[in-house]
Amino acid sequence: MILMDNNEMRHALEEELHRSFNHWVPEQDQELREILAYHMGWEGAGAGEKAQGKRIRPMLVLLSAAAAGADWRVALPAAASVEYLHNFSLIHDDIEDQDEIRRGRPTVWVKWGIAKAINAGDLMCMLGLLSLFRLEKTVSLEVSARASQILQETCAHLTRGQHLDLSYESEQILPLESYWPMVGGKTAALLACCTEMGAISAGVDEERRQAFRDFGWHLGLAFQVVDDWLGIWGDAVITGKGVGSDLVAGKKSLPILYALQKPGQFHDRWMAGPVKENDVALLTEYLEKEGAKEYTRQKADELTSQACAALEKATEYQNEAFQGLSQLTDVLLKRRS
Amino acid sequence: MILMDNNEMRHALEEELHRSFNHWVPEQDQELREILAYHMGWEGAGAGEKAQGKRIRPMLVLLSAAAAGADWRVALPAAASVEYLHNFSLIHDDIEDQDEIRRGRPTVWVKWGIAKAINAGDLMCMLGLLSLFRLEKTVSLEVSARASQILQETCAHLTRGQHLDLSYESEQILPLESYWPMVGGKTAALLACCTEMGAISAGVDEERRQAFRDFGWHLGLAFQVVDDWLGIWGDAVITGKGVGSDLVAGKKSLPILYALQKPGQFHDRWMAGPVKENDVALLTEYLEKEGAKEYTRQKADELTSQACAALEKATEYQNEAFQGLSQLTDVLLKRRS
Repeated sequence: MILMDNNEMRHALEEELHRSFNHWVPEQDQELREILAYHMGWEGAGAGEKAQGKRIRPMLVLLSAAAAGADWRVALPAAASVEYLHNFSLIHDDIEDQDEIRRGRPTVWVKWGIAKAINAGDLMCMLGLLSLFRLEKTVSLEVSARASQILQETCAHLTRGQHLDLSYESEQILPLESYWPMVGGKTAALLACCTEMGAISAGVDEERRQAFRDFGWHLGLAFQVVDDWLGIWGDAVITGKGVGSDLVAGKKSLPILYALQKPGQFHDRWMAGPVKENDVALLTEYLEKEGAKEYTRQKADELTSQACAALEKATEYQNEAFQGLSQLTDVLLKRRS
Repeated sequence: MILMDNNEMRHALEEELHRSFNHWVPEQDQELREILAYHMGWEGAGAGEKAQGKRIRPMLVLLSAAAAGADWRVALPAAASVEYLHNFSLIHDDIEDQDEIRRGRPTVWVKWGIAKAINAGDLMCMLGLLSLFRLEKTVSLEVSARASQILQETCAHLTRGQHLDLSYESEQILPLESYWPMVGGKTAALLACCTEMGAISAGVDEERRQAFRDFGWHLGLAFQVVDDWLGIWGDAVITGKGVGSDLVAGKKSLPILYALQKPGQFHDRWMAGPVKENDVALLTEYLEKEGAKEYTRQKADELTSQACAALEKATEYQNEAFQGLSQLTDVLLKRRS
């Protein structure tokens, strides 16, 4: 018997997202519906799969629930919930970071202005939280309440990561240690929330819940470190960004912060002012001389191993869902773009 | 025996607010704590009672709980929750409306910039939601879950009201009917949430819960209509705003929308372009000729009666808490500023 089918999961997820949307955002609020549906990739110019993103987070919830022994369908409200929460944070982050393009389309604030975008983001946040209440029916009141608390704590954690990120923008140099709290909040917290919510939907004990959480957390950290590696050594044709794009953007990524710790050519050139495209080849060489490429690769491997170990501890049987999570881990951590 | 003492309530509320703040916003997030504490009126230049606002909403929760037969202390988590939610919406509204002063002090976005202000508002929102979980201990899991749902639906309602308000900004004229959904979302929804949360903290039956809700809803509508009345006929010395300030601001208040329905001198002058301070006396006369002053006063009286009737239906005994709610209603609806 085939218990799981990714297409079926994905289809059920979109259904759950729409059910919640139609339930909580009334027809008469036409423009608000339009803004939210646009951001979700359902409507407007450029709507479609690419605009919807990969829905990695909700898939992580569903696969975790299944790996923890539940029918993944009971975790659908939690899956919808994290996807909306993620999209809420994107709407606000895009304003805060002044990003004009998201998934190949103009961002909400570019299309509707900052005021309406902030407000629509707030509604998306509520939609995320309200989506979770159906968990009272699919699982239980107790599980729904705990999932809700985890979700809200995660959201608070996201704002703390984003605040650090915003604060760091004006700094030219930062100690290496400042990297982890920022990345923890910006990326790992939400993935840890996904795997934990899947686990508690299945009613696992405290030890396994923690193992699921650890899996998501390390997966998130590893994902970001891989992203940072690609931001400098990724193939520009595949990533779609310029060569060494993080150097030009002055991003405080892991290899850059690592190299900046050491007094040397990279440090001196970085402090001398903005990096131009012409400088990228030379600065990449300096980075490598300081051992930053090696260090970043090692960190990625270390975090990937920790994620895999936590996953093995979390899942009792190496069932289909376990395979699904392993595959997802591979896709996320061995990607080239 | 004195069951209630407003000072004791107010003191317990501040304690609950601080308890929650310290629990959910860690010490290390220094600047975020600073921003939130500033907005709450606890810290920074100009901190103090005036900067804290009147804490009307949480008092409404506590008094409603007591009027519904509970010890008001069990409703403290709900009271803290609505106060934080209200303040979250103020932080975001101030950005969206480009308001630079709030309770006599520079707004958060003026002091810390738009990016950090949006993000700090998001954290304030989570603080509001997380504050509610202690209701599981003071009352029950079931009540906490229902209060949480009401709160989140209310928040969603606030964003719908704010969206209408933002959309109306660019319109020169609006039908009178558009006034009520906007005011419902912007003002009445949160007051209805307060009285309802107080009632469910006390475990009342469905009919009385609805009566408490109706009380808060009509109180909110009446409050706004009185505000609109004061925005034109209020004593400028007492309100602290200019004479006929809503006319100069081009605000779509109730008397203005009422008069605009009628073809006449007010309509023609309004459509001819922005109102200057010199025009206020003449336009106020036009408004009165169209019957707008009378209509607004009548609406305020009607809504006040409806609020009082709902309050009498809600409370079984005309106990101290009932007196407290009646007094609060008087203060809000018979104010001159």
